[in-house]
Amino acid sequence: MAFEIKNYRIDRKNSFKIDNFSTNGKKDIAENKDERNTILRELAPELDHLQDLLYAEHQRKVLIVLQGMDTSGKDGTIRAVFQSVDPLAVRTAYFKAPTENELDRDYLWRVHNVVPRRGEIVIFNRSHYEDVLVTKVKGWIDDDEEQRRLRQINEFERLLSETGTVIVKFFLHISKDEQKERLQERLDNPDKNWKFNLGDLDDRKLWGDFQKQYEKVINATSTDYAPWYVIPADSKSGRNVIIMQILLDTLRAMQMQYPKVDTSNWPKTID
Amino acid sequence: MAFEIKNYRIDRKNSFKIDNFSTNGKKDIAENKDERNTILRELAPELDHLQDLLYAEHQRKVLIVLQGMDTSGKDGTIRAVFQSVDPLAVRTAYFKAPTENELDRDYLWRVHNVVPRRGEIVIFNRSHYEDVLVTKVKGWIDDDEEQRRLRQINEFERLLSETGTVIVKFFLHISKDEQKERLQERLDNPDKNWKFNLGDLDDRKLWGDFQKQYEKVINATSTDYAPWYVIPADSKSGRNVIIMQILLDTLRAMQMQYPKVDTSNWPKTID
Repeated sequence: MAFEIKNYRIDRKNSFKIDNFSTNGKKDIAENKDERNTILRELAPELDHLQDLLYAEHQRKVLIVLQGMDTSGKDGTIRAVFQSVDPLAVRTAYFKAPTENELDRDYLWRVHNVVPRRGEIVIFNRSHYEDVLVTKVKGWIDDDEEQRRLRQINEFERLLSETGTVIVKFFLHISKDEQKERLQERLDNPDKNWKFNLGDLDDRKLWGDFQKQYEKVINATSTDYAPWYVIPADSKSGRNVIIMQILLDTLRAMQMQYPKVDTSNWPKTID
Repeated sequence: MAFEIKNYRIDRKNSFKIDNFSTNGKKDIAENKDERNTILRELAPELDHLQDLLYAEHQRKVLIVLQGMDTSGKDGTIRAVFQSVDPLAVRTAYFKAPTENELDRDYLWRVHNVVPRRGEIVIFNRSHYEDVLVTKVKGWIDDDEEQRRLRQINEFERLLSETGTVIVKFFLHISKDEQKERLQERLDNPDKNWKFNLGDLDDRKLWGDFQKQYEKVINATSTDYAPWYVIPADSKSGRNVIIMQILLDTLRAMQMQYPKVDTSNWPKTID
């Protein structure tokens, strides 16, 4: 197993070349799908345990950002990786097109509003990164505004980090061919029709532009306090294992402890 | 009338010496109280008009920060200056000691949550500045944390400014003798007893520390995009006129316009 977390991690600016990253992660984990699923199942209890520790410690916060093209597996990742985790202290925040109410404030307003509280894990299903991705690819913001936003995002994440939030950002990296298959499946399978959105085809036409923009944005916002991880995501089971491993590694590094409680004057038994 | 706005404005770092600023503003406006109140009454309609323009334009936002020692007149300023303004688009946000829910997030979370929306004026009655004022004077944060917060606050205000918020910060500057009189009045006058808080006396004992800390914080957070104004506040009527003038000047400089509406295909009359 050639699995090493540092192979996926981008934590310095301008060190990421998207073409150097494979979208196929099977080889890193195990060639056989059942094997990959078994690994995931075996790792799950530790995530559950570490989340319980985070909740009990009630000091730090964890923010997970999920970004990727349509069909890259953001929903599927949340379902598979967090399946067994206590919903009490894990929350998903979705960022769709902003409402009129949200547009009346700065673009980070709605984001700041839903950051994790102490002891909590929050997963961003899409995020403030849309404000420098789709917005730039479609030409809704110019170069100056893009640069301002990249700086603002770095400063915002720095604030969160300095106030106790551990940030992990995942780019779910799929190939254009894999997206084709997944979109076709949404067309063909009546149970998946509801996931199909004609607008996804417009974004698909801009595939190359989106890839370039992801590369640019990841290069501009990879920091030691909020690293990006580029996840080969053509294989769903491989993707799940890689993300699980990175999360476990991140949570382990926090070296959390159950709070020490003074039990000296506690009764021995409850009457 | 020796009134000039620039005499009160601090918009460069490290240019403010608190001892050089008088707490007596009467001489800048008019020696006679009735005269000062007449001036305020005459200026009020323009504030009303400019606020209506801001609301109609629905583009930019205005944030007013009010800071000062106890009894310095934050509540009184809001009442007197904004008396005639349409409450539809003016909102006051109070920042008391943070709740447990607020402490579970970073200290700017509750602040960002209530920033003005497009077309709105928001007045902060106390603000995020308490997080570098009372917290530092009382020793709840250390020097490193203070420096981090000063940087974070500058970046936060920069974000607001870059996304369309005009920021004006007022330090209501009173003398220790004036505070003594106002606290004594709260003790002696049964109708004002409700305003008296024993804790205010603790802060009064730290008067010199608070003055030094205000000087330091104002020096560290005076920027061209979020200037501080130091307002001589021993005279309430003088304070009101000075703040009104500064607000008018700030709003005029925004050069707002009622939105142009295409009326070419409108009916001449309503049936």
